[in-house]
Amino acid sequence: MQYSSESIDNVVEAFSKLPGIGKRSALRLALYLLKCPEQEAQRLAQAILELRAKIRRCRQCFTLTDQELCSVCSNPKRNSALICVVSELEDVLAIEKTQQYSGVYHVLGGLISPLAGIGPAQLTIAPLIERAKAAEEIILALSASIEGETTAFYIAKQMQGLSLRITSLARGIPIGSELQYADEITLARSLQNRIVYNSPR
Amino acid sequence: MQYSSESIDNVVEAFSKLPGIGKRSALRLALYLLKCPEQEAQRLAQAILELRAKIRRCRQCFTLTDQELCSVCSNPKRNSALICVVSELEDVLAIEKTQQYSGVYHVLGGLISPLAGIGPAQLTIAPLIERAKAAEEIILALSASIEGETTAFYIAKQMQGLSLRITSLARGIPIGSELQYADEITLARSLQNRIVYNSPR
Repeated sequence: MQYSSESIDNVVEAFSKLPGIGKRSALRLALYLLKCPEQEAQRLAQAILELRAKIRRCRQCFTLTDQELCSVCSNPKRNSALICVVSELEDVLAIEKTQQYSGVYHVLGGLISPLAGIGPAQLTIAPLIERAKAAEEIILALSASIEGETTAFYIAKQMQGLSLRITSLARGIPIGSELQYADEITLARSLQNRIVYNSPR
Repeated sequence: MQYSSESIDNVVEAFSKLPGIGKRSALRLALYLLKCPEQEAQRLAQAILELRAKIRRCRQCFTLTDQELCSVCSNPKRNSALICVVSELEDVLAIEKTQQYSGVYHVLGGLISPLAGIGPAQLTIAPLIERAKAAEEIILALSASIEGETTAFYIAKQMQGLSLRITSLARGIPIGSELQYADEITLARSLQNRIVYNSPR
């Protein structure tokens, strides 16, 4: 579809490359940007440019930040001997949202996946092993997929000989979900790793 | 919610001001822009900046364009004696999409609405009257609302004395829609303005 001008076409095309935005919503966004206060449109453009110029990986945990050290690593209240290993920044944000975690993170930047050609060398596993030497506990918060399990297994193996606890997130029936709708692997796992309420000594 | 850095926060905030984009999709867009090729992010920012810098109103029909005259007005194949009067650019795009219209447009920039404080002087009605003097037909393609009808009535009145045809879009049952679900006003209008298939002379 041809719009009334090249400038609008360009914005529509650039917007429709973003995930979840089709040509129709892209046009709506473009028309909104034409009508909104000029400052608002400029602020968006500026923010996008700055995002790419300023954002880099935290020197310690490899999450995305605009500082040398991210806001978690540089926070003295966080327990730096407790390291939660995640695949991506999104996972950090999800865990931070729980407001239940007081340790620090380590972002791998992906998971080991021989099919996709991603080996340990493409991930930040070597610096993790280095950090682990000063840690007390490593929480492997990786997804419950073949790649996640492979990566967890590889990391745990590399840490053999270090005197630290290695844990992983609990797997089981999600809160609020019906037992009958849980898939059998999850159900089997939650039976294996059942929680003790009360046991006679 | 606090994200990992100010730069991400800024993009999320700017995106979530756009229509139909909440905090969650804004974050997804921001993370996408962090991971996509840098060129793609820059192209989006640049397109937004250019949009506001280059776009202006067409000297003749007041649609948005980046030229002195828009692509419709400057097209010699379009019939400049047939003027379709619309409220906004979106209406032009909708009519162009039909590929059935060979005339030119006139964008009012809104509709007369005493409640919103919009009178004829805020719209491009005076230049329309001027253009109408050289036209053969004016099509009033305004919405079927009180504001649309008021504006159509006002324009028709201003054009009294000019020797031209004034028409409006047909109102009736939309194509593909069930008669029983049409609202009564539409149905009454479509009875009034019924189309003649065959009439004995």
